[in-house]
Amino acid sequence: MRNIRITLAYRGTAYHGWQVQRNARSVCTVFQDALEQALGRRYDVKGCSRTDAGVHANGFVLSVLCPGEAPPAIPCAALQKALNDRLPRDMAVLDCADAPEEFHPRYDCTAKRYLYKIWDRPVKNPFLEDLALHCRQPLDLERADSAARQFLGRWDFTSLCAAGGSVEDKTRTIYRCAVRREGELAVLSVTGDGFLYNMVRILAGTVLEASRGKLDPAGIPDILRARDRSLAGPTLPPHGLYLDRVFYPGDEIL
Amino acid sequence: MRNIRITLAYRGTAYHGWQVQRNARSVCTVFQDALEQALGRRYDVKGCSRTDAGVHANGFVLSVLCPGEAPPAIPCAALQKALNDRLPRDMAVLDCADAPEEFHPRYDCTAKRYLYKIWDRPVKNPFLEDLALHCRQPLDLERADSAARQFLGRWDFTSLCAAGGSVEDKTRTIYRCAVRREGELAVLSVTGDGFLYNMVRILAGTVLEASRGKLDPAGIPDILRARDRSLAGPTLPPHGLYLDRVFYPGDEIL
Repeated sequence: MRNIRITLAYRGTAYHGWQVQRNARSVCTVFQDALEQALGRRYDVKGCSRTDAGVHANGFVLSVLCPGEAPPAIPCAALQKALNDRLPRDMAVLDCADAPEEFHPRYDCTAKRYLYKIWDRPVKNPFLEDLALHCRQPLDLERADSAARQFLGRWDFTSLCAAGGSVEDKTRTIYRCAVRREGELAVLSVTGDGFLYNMVRILAGTVLEASRGKLDPAGIPDILRARDRSLAGPTLPPHGLYLDRVFYPGDEIL
Repeated sequence: MRNIRITLAYRGTAYHGWQVQRNARSVCTVFQDALEQALGRRYDVKGCSRTDAGVHANGFVLSVLCPGEAPPAIPCAALQKALNDRLPRDMAVLDCADAPEEFHPRYDCTAKRYLYKIWDRPVKNPFLEDLALHCRQPLDLERADSAARQFLGRWDFTSLCAAGGSVEDKTRTIYRCAVRREGELAVLSVTGDGFLYNMVRILAGTVLEASRGKLDPAGIPDILRARDRSLAGPTLPPHGLYLDRVFYPGDEIL
């Protein structure tokens, strides 16, 4: 028995998200194909979350559980290289390490960090197609950041959750939520112990509305208290979203 | 008669360079198509240079000469917007302005600046596919920069010119040539009064060989004096190359 923990970066544009789906190219399937080529056998893999179609990852964590008494003996560094040689150009293994048998990338994760990137200039950027949302009007960064900070703490996030989710308890804790300029992009960074379906994209939409003056940052706590999706901002498109980092016990979250 | 000067940015991956070619999608043709849609008539355009297939531009300059007594009356700002609405996502008009009738983007240009971008980490970067050359070995930036500076000044660049060119005088002046780190990339920036065919890609290849210790930076003047292409480094692939800026009389070059 061997359990291998892998950190994967991918440009999500060409994929229908992480999850294996019929008749659609998923990150998981393409990864499993490369793994099968490298190890000569197909293995199940477990992911840290389901990312949507078009969403990117700077550090998606997955595990490969190799059952049996004679798991593949390949060293982690060689497996990383073998995978990177076989994966398509929009996917890369950043790290590969043996993990305890009981390690599970989703259940063991203590927090996740997402980024939402916005190119906020009048003219589109030909190098950021599919990599950042284009808003023609420059963001009021102070207002956006002030709106982002309203989400800090423990809240019922029903107002920021797409309808139709099956999750009962919608309480989540946000440890960090801020908007900063990184190079020429405006970047929302949000770290929390868990996220509901579409939550980051709706949170980003709400911050954007606040930055545009369509919504008062100080009114955000009331929107959360109302538990009413219609009061929050729109669900922004997936191509600005990045799963940036997944945290596990022992990792410093802030 | 009206002469319109346009600054264009494009991601060159999907194009067979600037120049119109049979059976190939060129930047020029795609731009002319958008222009025809915007103005209701097809116009000739003149470009500042021929970029190769896969080469990018941050600021390619072209001109649209509209002959006759009743040229299109559309204001430049409206034309810019009309073009950006019609151009594909990997191409954008950054600037649009009326120019003197005699303005010619190639003949009037006093200097050009090119960038060559290198991602120099062991693992590939899925977000930079087609946007930077991947070198697994980190560059020795000091050596690379020292090599780059050897090209400063006025030289016969026969050693850095692809065979088969029809240019007689291969003397060019390099005003600036340096390698710096920009974010996580190593970037060669070279500004000169003109460039021979493949010259920047060969210059970048020579700098790369020097950074790897395969070539002594101090030996570069001898390579230039020998006027022998075989002594310089390899021609690097096009996808790391950017035509960054074109200079005209009145522009400060450094």
